[in-house]
Amino acid sequence: MSNKAKPTSKGLLIVVSAPAGCGKDTILGCVRDSCRNLHYSVSATTRQIREGEEEGVHYFFKTHEEFEELIKNDKLLEFTEYAGNYYGTPKDFIPKMLEAGKDVVLKIEVEGAANIRRIFPDCVLVFILPPSFDELERRLKKRGSETEETIKKRVNIAETEMSYVKSYDYIIINENLEKATEDFKAVIRAEKLSVKRGTPVID
Amino acid sequence: MSNKAKPTSKGLLIVVSAPAGCGKDTILGCVRDSCRNLHYSVSATTRQIREGEEEGVHYFFKTHEEFEELIKNDKLLEFTEYAGNYYGTPKDFIPKMLEAGKDVVLKIEVEGAANIRRIFPDCVLVFILPPSFDELERRLKKRGSETEETIKKRVNIAETEMSYVKSYDYIIINENLEKATEDFKAVIRAEKLSVKRGTPVID
Repeated sequence: MSNKAKPTSKGLLIVVSAPAGCGKDTILGCVRDSCRNLHYSVSATTRQIREGEEEGVHYFFKTHEEFEELIKNDKLLEFTEYAGNYYGTPKDFIPKMLEAGKDVVLKIEVEGAANIRRIFPDCVLVFILPPSFDELERRLKKRGSETEETIKKRVNIAETEMSYVKSYDYIIINENLEKATEDFKAVIRAEKLSVKRGTPVID
Repeated sequence: MSNKAKPTSKGLLIVVSAPAGCGKDTILGCVRDSCRNLHYSVSATTRQIREGEEEGVHYFFKTHEEFEELIKNDKLLEFTEYAGNYYGTPKDFIPKMLEAGKDVVLKIEVEGAANIRRIFPDCVLVFILPPSFDELERRLKKRGSETEETIKKRVNIAETEMSYVKSYDYIIINENLEKATEDFKAVIRAEKLSVKRGTPVID
């Protein structure tokens, strides 16, 4: 019998939602740099690729027809429509990683997150918020990748999404990138110490 | 109307239990050094003062008669007997600090912790464990402040206390002081982001 405390071995699934323009990808990039055992689930989407984005890294970019083929062939864990585009989670990646004791981060919008919670009740739901809606609009405009109309639509969606916040576990306000990154890392670290994920065995 | 996200204002009560010899006080000392907004509730006890301990810092040291006077005069939030000594929590400090938005750390044994949870259902319960019971015995012997018999009693109590672990929120294994301190700080940081403590208002 080992003389060491044994941590629980199953991986942690961290589900992250954020209105567009909240800096979610920047935060996750910083977290990724310092937590090498985190694995990112890549979603499929029909939305247009943006400057700096890479196929298979940020998303698997699909046409509407290709996406509907994925649905038809049961290749998605869940999917949803958001701002006129499909977003979906590939079927095999997450359960395989969790079983192997690896932690997985999944970026997903609010309805997708609710679906994932039903499939993985132990997942941790994190919502990233901007310090204010005015600031969110400023950030979206600065990004310059979308039309005025899309920006208005995104801010409206963000306001609607606020009603989902209560079903999340943690809220991180991205006023300062360094602080928000540390917040995110603290959530992962604390969740791994949580008794509800199993108690270690002390001999 | 302010344009900033407003965090919730009530303080966090962190209740810490650990078998004697787990390094609880060393960890808390390190946490105190880097979290200046943490306030420590000082318990009253009838146990003997140890080398390096200070009246009013580590405990309020009382005789049995003095302690029973505190009980009689309703000056304690809760009290319990442990390893032949009384331990109790002074009445006013915690609620006053929490209402003022300050975070409070309370060191207390397992039965006391259960009492505190009944009084403050929102408190966070943290259990600190040694990497093994053999290691715990070694640490207690190294401390040199107690007799062989007391050490045996303490190790037995520690084994019994393991059955309480499941009613705690977090377990920190103190195999490495720096890691255990970072764990403790992550728990505090994450709990402050928890949606169950209230959602911020975004304008």
